[in-house]
Amino acid sequence: MSQTNENAVRDLLERWAAAVRAKNVSEVLANHSPKIRMFDVPPPFESRGLAEYEQTWRLFYSSQPDRVAFDIKWLEVVAGADVAFAFAHMQCVEPTEKVRRTPLNFRLTVGLRKVEGRWIIVHEHHSVPAT
Amino acid sequence: MSQTNENAVRDLLERWAAAVRAKNVSEVLANHSPKIRMFDVPPPFESRGLAEYEQTWRLFYSSQPDRVAFDIKWLEVVAGADVAFAFAHMQCVEPTEKVRRTPLNFRLTVGLRKVEGRWIIVHEHHSVPAT
Repeated sequence: MSQTNENAVRDLLERWAAAVRAKNVSEVLANHSPKIRMFDVPPPFESRGLAEYEQTWRLFYSSQPDRVAFDIKWLEVVAGADVAFAFAHMQCVEPTEKVRRTPLNFRLTVGLRKVEGRWIIVHEHHSVPAT
Repeated sequence: MSQTNENAVRDLLERWAAAVRAKNVSEVLANHSPKIRMFDVPPPFESRGLAEYEQTWRLFYSSQPDRVAFDIKWLEVVAGADVAFAFAHMQCVEPTEKVRRTPLNFRLTVGLRKVEGRWIIVHEHHSVPAT
């Protein structure tokens, strides 16, 4: 059961990352709580609720060259019967003046609850180390 | 039971933050997995295991004036029977050239497992928005 839950969460996160890469925003939002609380790489400090969460993706796409990168390089999932979290090493690209596709490594943590048999993301935390 | 677990995790995190403020490093590390994986505010990208985790606190203390601030301003806990996560708005201080105690707000996410009846921190993610 715990193995099944771990696989379900891993699968959900892989489909979510694929939707980000495909710029399929409705699919990006498909498994999120209306009360999602997100800590993103750029400001603001926090985004609350689906409308603000969607806005973070508009901002992300405005910074990404085509083809969008949003790659899971390493992922660990810890899943119980109805609560799970996952943490990952991620990579997107950051266009600089000289190089259009500079890889940007960032850290990701996701918190999930199982609601009526379905895993839902209630929290995301994306960051880079402060410089 | 879920309420009991939520309270236990909240209590553990409040005692951990108090230990950070008291510079009681052994107490700061008392409820952590030997395999803790931490994403911190400053580099490195990740710290793995208790020795590297302890090093992040040495670095933190080297930047903090006396009295150390490490305050939970807002905290939400999501706890199942044996997996839990929590996310918080935190505040420490950052001494600047002009002002010795400039408040620094940061984001925190913590992942926990219950092992032999005891909650253990297996993951921490601390960050500020990138500028």
